[in-house]
Amino acid sequence: MSLNPKLLGLLRTQFGERITTVATICRQHAIDESWHSPSPPDAVCYPETTQEVSQLVKLAVQFNTPLIPYGAGTSLEGHIFAPEGGVTVDLSRMNQLLAINSEDLDCVIQPGIRRKGLNDQLRHEGLFFPVDPGADASLGGMVATRASGTNAVRYGTMKDNVLALTAVMADGAIVHTGTRARKSAAGYDLTRLLVGSEGTLGIITEITLKLYPIPDYQAAARVTFPSTSAAVESAIQVVQFGVPIARMELMDAQGIKAINEYSKMNLPLLPTLFFEFHGSKSAVSEQADQVRDIVQEHDGSDYLWAIKAEDRNQLWHARHTAHYAVIATGQGSRGWTTDVCVPVSKLVDCIVQTRQDLESSFMDAPIIGHVGDGNFHVIFSVDPDNERQIKEVKRLNERLVERALQMDGTCTGEHGIGLGKKEWLQQEAGTAIKLMEIIKGALDPKGVLNPGKIVNHNPS
Amino acid sequence: MSLNPKLLGLLRTQFGERITTVATICRQHAIDESWHSPSPPDAVCYPETTQEVSQLVKLAVQFNTPLIPYGAGTSLEGHIFAPEGGVTVDLSRMNQLLAINSEDLDCVIQPGIRRKGLNDQLRHEGLFFPVDPGADASLGGMVATRASGTNAVRYGTMKDNVLALTAVMADGAIVHTGTRARKSAAGYDLTRLLVGSEGTLGIITEITLKLYPIPDYQAAARVTFPSTSAAVESAIQVVQFGVPIARMELMDAQGIKAINEYSKMNLPLLPTLFFEFHGSKSAVSEQADQVRDIVQEHDGSDYLWAIKAEDRNQLWHARHTAHYAVIATGQGSRGWTTDVCVPVSKLVDCIVQTRQDLESSFMDAPIIGHVGDGNFHVIFSVDPDNERQIKEVKRLNERLVERALQMDGTCTGEHGIGLGKKEWLQQEAGTAIKLMEIIKGALDPKGVLNPGKIVNHNPS
Repeated sequence: MSLNPKLLGLLRTQFGERITTVATICRQHAIDESWHSPSPPDAVCYPETTQEVSQLVKLAVQFNTPLIPYGAGTSLEGHIFAPEGGVTVDLSRMNQLLAINSEDLDCVIQPGIRRKGLNDQLRHEGLFFPVDPGADASLGGMVATRASGTNAVRYGTMKDNVLALTAVMADGAIVHTGTRARKSAAGYDLTRLLVGSEGTLGIITEITLKLYPIPDYQAAARVTFPSTSAAVESAIQVVQFGVPIARMELMDAQGIKAINEYSKMNLPLLPTLFFEFHGSKSAVSEQADQVRDIVQEHDGSDYLWAIKAEDRNQLWHARHTAHYAVIATGQGSRGWTTDVCVPVSKLVDCIVQTRQDLESSFMDAPIIGHVGDGNFHVIFSVDPDNERQIKEVKRLNERLVERALQMDGTCTGEHGIGLGKKEWLQQEAGTAIKLMEIIKGALDPKGVLNPGKIVNHNPS
Repeated sequence: MSLNPKLLGLLRTQFGERITTVATICRQHAIDESWHSPSPPDAVCYPETTQEVSQLVKLAVQFNTPLIPYGAGTSLEGHIFAPEGGVTVDLSRMNQLLAINSEDLDCVIQPGIRRKGLNDQLRHEGLFFPVDPGADASLGGMVATRASGTNAVRYGTMKDNVLALTAVMADGAIVHTGTRARKSAAGYDLTRLLVGSEGTLGIITEITLKLYPIPDYQAAARVTFPSTSAAVESAIQVVQFGVPIARMELMDAQGIKAINEYSKMNLPLLPTLFFEFHGSKSAVSEQADQVRDIVQEHDGSDYLWAIKAEDRNQLWHARHTAHYAVIATGQGSRGWTTDVCVPVSKLVDCIVQTRQDLESSFMDAPIIGHVGDGNFHVIFSVDPDNERQIKEVKRLNERLVERALQMDGTCTGEHGIGLGKKEWLQQEAGTAIKLMEIIKGALDPKGVLNPGKIVNHNPS
């Protein structure tokens, strides 16, 4: 495919050197962190304002040309691919922190700002933004995929932490979906409709986020267990007792093994839970006591406790490098990460059955989980050109997703649908898929916004 | 207006005595807790299953007949009125608690179950549902209006506490909008689209709610202040310091006066904050200490502390009876309750300016607020037939809403739009109103679902 020359001319007039068709740049914009085969766009455009995004949309829609929003390229389901060609809208130049309202515990940002950079700037105000998907994703991408991660058990997901959005719709209209009020009952929740819409309903150009005071006191702990189920049962009990834990992450023995190899560490080769506690000193100490009681009941041992920031960081190092460690030490060069989420009462069964599947396969892989909310990942290291590997991982993933759906869970807790999970969404949503198609058709009748993702569009 | 006789015949065949056109019953279903002039439906129907709601919708849509969902009639903005006639769908017979999943901290309910009854049933499991709008509303109504109330500062609003819904759409299709997983990134957030949609996009027939363990320990406190601004400033500081307070309610001196008269109490005639603390014994004690320090800095005094359930209930009695106390002791017989919500940094200014407006008016009225999230109410006692009163309250409300919008706030924190706030929604949403109209038009092309509420529909 290639861009309509007339459109390209108009875009050049508008954007000058900020529109490019250079093949290497187009290819770079089709590289994410998934195993899916990339499909590059025909051009990449770098708008710098909401107005420019609006102008871009108005031009593209005239030529029925797809627009693919792009933040940091850390997607795991092919969200940034351009299967129908078109123009990638690289929002990385819209990366400003526009306002911090410390008194209101909120801030207004542009979508291209990335998680770590944002928190670096917030730290001076004694504030932080908690949602942490691991990767240093752009906030626009995190909004668009309804990201969550290790802190979600305490602070919620992106759904819970966006107050309002500015977005450019498929007709180029600029809309504001909310105010800075902490709550509102004013009509349809357009903010939540756009959170998780993966760029298929509008292009997000401004975000109002909730912030939190940096806790007075933070502590971390690491505990090993004789079995994965003992670890998971501990985690579930922590949730059920209402302990306001900040993070609680599972890594099974296979994961620990990969970490040890990758980071030259010597962690015990046992299922492990990593905890983080936030609060006042006494609150943290009370939570830690509660957790210690619970893990002891489940034969947890080797309870390692860290308070100083550097000790905490070291303790969490294993968890944070897991994704890359697994890929590096596995059979292939790319990651394929599953993402089911089930009601916590089903989590032990789901993980144990998945563990059995993995052990009887030549593609055994570690399980890593945000077990506090029932979400876990199997991280496969695959060679995308190896058909046997891909076929086997497909089979394992299929069994896993079907298991999760039977347990009243979801095929994706936090990675989104993109291209990779569309057939599963059909199965999970059932008749509700038609609603999604109607909404897509009504808000983007020509199907120019990130076409092919989440649902198929039927251009009118 | 009256119902198409052919439709009525079909409904009688389907529902027997569970469809009625008796005028007194129709009128009863047009009585809510607002000052708006009621407009009764032509008939009232009592479905008992999701399937029956689907059949009702399919019949009604054939005859372009409006359907108005009805729960408990505690709406404040005319949501249950039938301005275009039609059939009220009384869901009070669908009032079962279908499942409690204690391990997962969730339950599945029918929409007609009411808040107090639900919590009575949950108590045996050591669980509770926190959202408390004051009135003993139906949970279906609370979902539909995105209700919140006194606990929202800690536990969030209905938006945050619904995991999934079953709903009947305008074509009679039954859809499930989610699973029991605690989080999901699977496509558009249809759950949040229906929460707050006021029955205009679908009729909610089943709800999966998040639940919470009843806290080990609860305590309450009451503090008086020399000025309303001192009280509000204290409240804001409590939020900014991240104290995890469960409730924090303001009542100004006028409100206290009404309570004293209504309940024969003798509370100090001063601006007052009511607090509730949830947690472990030490967490509650720590929170109470933090709050005591903050209120003392703002000249709070008369710090009254209650731990036993009966003492707590007595302390909260004033707050809980406020709505009816104000109406009973005021100039009229009906309540007119304003509902703005502003960023907390603007709350002092907003309340002080509103207080000035009220004091220079012959319709002075108390201010009562969920100050933790920036939401407050002026409760007017009005005689709907007194044009002078209505005109003056309209003027005061207009000034208040405009003030809130200028402060980047919302015209409704928790009551919804209904018929009463439509023109304000237009102003607040700006270009986003068109999105709401497109969504309404796409999902309910004939405009049969609660027509005239939130946005106008344009029947195709």
